[in-house]
Amino acid sequence: MKLSSQNLDARLDTLYDAIVVGGGMGGLSAAIYLARYGLKCLVVEKGKGRSLWMQDLRNYVGLDPDTPGRDILNHGAKQAIAWGADYLRGFVEDVTDEGDSFSVKVKVGKNNSIYPVFRGKYLIAASGVIDVLPELENMQNVYDYAGYTLHVCMICDGFDMWDQKAVLIVKTESQINAAFVLNWFTPYISVLTHGACEVGAETREKLAAHGYPLYEQKIRRFLGENHQLQGVELEDGAVVEATTGLINMGSIYHNQYLKHIPDLDWDGENLIANSMCQTSHPRIFALGDLKQGLNQVSVAVADGTLAATQIWRNIRRAGAPRKWEENLSQH
Amino acid sequence: MKLSSQNLDARLDTLYDAIVVGGGMGGLSAAIYLARYGLKCLVVEKGKGRSLWMQDLRNYVGLDPDTPGRDILNHGAKQAIAWGADYLRGFVEDVTDEGDSFSVKVKVGKNNSIYPVFRGKYLIAASGVIDVLPELENMQNVYDYAGYTLHVCMICDGFDMWDQKAVLIVKTESQINAAFVLNWFTPYISVLTHGACEVGAETREKLAAHGYPLYEQKIRRFLGENHQLQGVELEDGAVVEATTGLINMGSIYHNQYLKHIPDLDWDGENLIANSMCQTSHPRIFALGDLKQGLNQVSVAVADGTLAATQIWRNIRRAGAPRKWEENLSQH
Repeated sequence: MKLSSQNLDARLDTLYDAIVVGGGMGGLSAAIYLARYGLKCLVVEKGKGRSLWMQDLRNYVGLDPDTPGRDILNHGAKQAIAWGADYLRGFVEDVTDEGDSFSVKVKVGKNNSIYPVFRGKYLIAASGVIDVLPELENMQNVYDYAGYTLHVCMICDGFDMWDQKAVLIVKTESQINAAFVLNWFTPYISVLTHGACEVGAETREKLAAHGYPLYEQKIRRFLGENHQLQGVELEDGAVVEATTGLINMGSIYHNQYLKHIPDLDWDGENLIANSMCQTSHPRIFALGDLKQGLNQVSVAVADGTLAATQIWRNIRRAGAPRKWEENLSQH
Repeated sequence: MKLSSQNLDARLDTLYDAIVVGGGMGGLSAAIYLARYGLKCLVVEKGKGRSLWMQDLRNYVGLDPDTPGRDILNHGAKQAIAWGADYLRGFVEDVTDEGDSFSVKVKVGKNNSIYPVFRGKYLIAASGVIDVLPELENMQNVYDYAGYTLHVCMICDGFDMWDQKAVLIVKTESQINAAFVLNWFTPYISVLTHGACEVGAETREKLAAHGYPLYEQKIRRFLGENHQLQGVELEDGAVVEATTGLINMGSIYHNQYLKHIPDLDWDGENLIANSMCQTSHPRIFALGDLKQGLNQVSVAVADGTLAATQIWRNIRRAGAPRKWEENLSQH
């Protein structure tokens, strides 16, 4: 059922089998599986996740390469609800481990917000990341290109940058190292720091040795039309010619609600999980970009499958088997 | 490019970056990723794999739940070819490890077969399984129900069996244990051995204690219409009432071509692989149903992503970085 501030009261007494934080590709996969295992689950989706920004999904078996992320998210949410999952737009503010269950506090509504608390036996952390984008005065100018010809994932879109002039936009010196992977796809790389970091001598020398120019000024605006990048104008008016680019400025993680839970093993901002996506806390599972490993839609979708299946196994094994009572009474 | 006996000669001198044995969900995912990494790959698809038999795919994010397996396979093959992969209908008969590469002998054509040998640096074993079906005189009668209301995967289709009268068809005594998982979805289970195995006292007692009747006669035919099962007629004319069922008779693996390769770790018929799907042989990767783990489409698709990515990393790291020569000459 689709929940909202109007009808969510009906679920405040529900003990969900699992609460899924995040309705991206991984969370929706988990919800579809959980629902089809006959388990009660709630997906809490804050919106504006990474996959919503994807203008096309090039490499997912079964879908046309020009399928936008938002279409898949809508489709998956409808599918999960149709199988019996609950789905709520809201932001998970806090999770408390109560021993046998979690209580999950959700902020619902941007204005006049309410803060319902839901309860679940298991928690699936599928709240992923958002890519950091360069901050310009006119953010619409960034959105006009980001996800189109200005990419955020080299694995997804490197192919579409093949042998083109490309800008690599970074925020820290270490992020410049992406140039030495991106050069698999194109060697025509200009590195832009947008004035955000100092660059040491060693990195400068390495860039020079590869012929990749470094621009340390702030970006004024992206040039082009119809989402097709043509160049980047810097603060002094100089233009760096480029028809494509990679933004490699790191990610913002939505994982604050887990930070005070003991027994969770982290690798930086990523949760460490086993082959079934179970974290070091036996009732918390982690999927997709929030988990260690490759940030790819297909991986997140499989993670949802695995986490839901392990939760089903745990719940099934903890319960009594169902007997065919009619046949038993004949004995 | 789509290869056939007519044009494959053009590829006999090619050293592929990877040869993918199997064009199911995992193999196609690997091929799409490999092609988009700019790597040369060949998919060899024998046909008639497990996913071809799926009449619908209930639990894969992004696709309608009534999407048949054959549609996804066709779609994925076209996508892989469009990105640059080669694709050949054929049966991999033998693989020889030549140290830096493999030679892969393929049988092409059912009649007047030819046996071309292709070469690849890496091998992706994605040749999966086929489910064993009960052998009846009239196999069309089996195909009329298998994949429709007579399922082969409990995780995929247990939900669609909810509280229905179900037959569980097995070939060995240990396969009967599936009854004690299937009872999560329905307790109205009749177990049919199709005369294929002896059943010991302990199993009989356990079935009786759950109220699940055991039928040890051969199956004569499945009853119903329009793919909707209504019952199973046994050899003596008795009819077991059922509107659904699970065939749990094991799988036929297509992995013979790997059996003489040393250094491969097996778990029964499944290959053991690491988190990137790399087997104990560093140039052989294993995906999906051929690999240890859950046999699910989403898992196979992610496996293809992971294997292709690791192969790309290995090949990329082994090569020289591409420089922007024009800028270097300016120095």
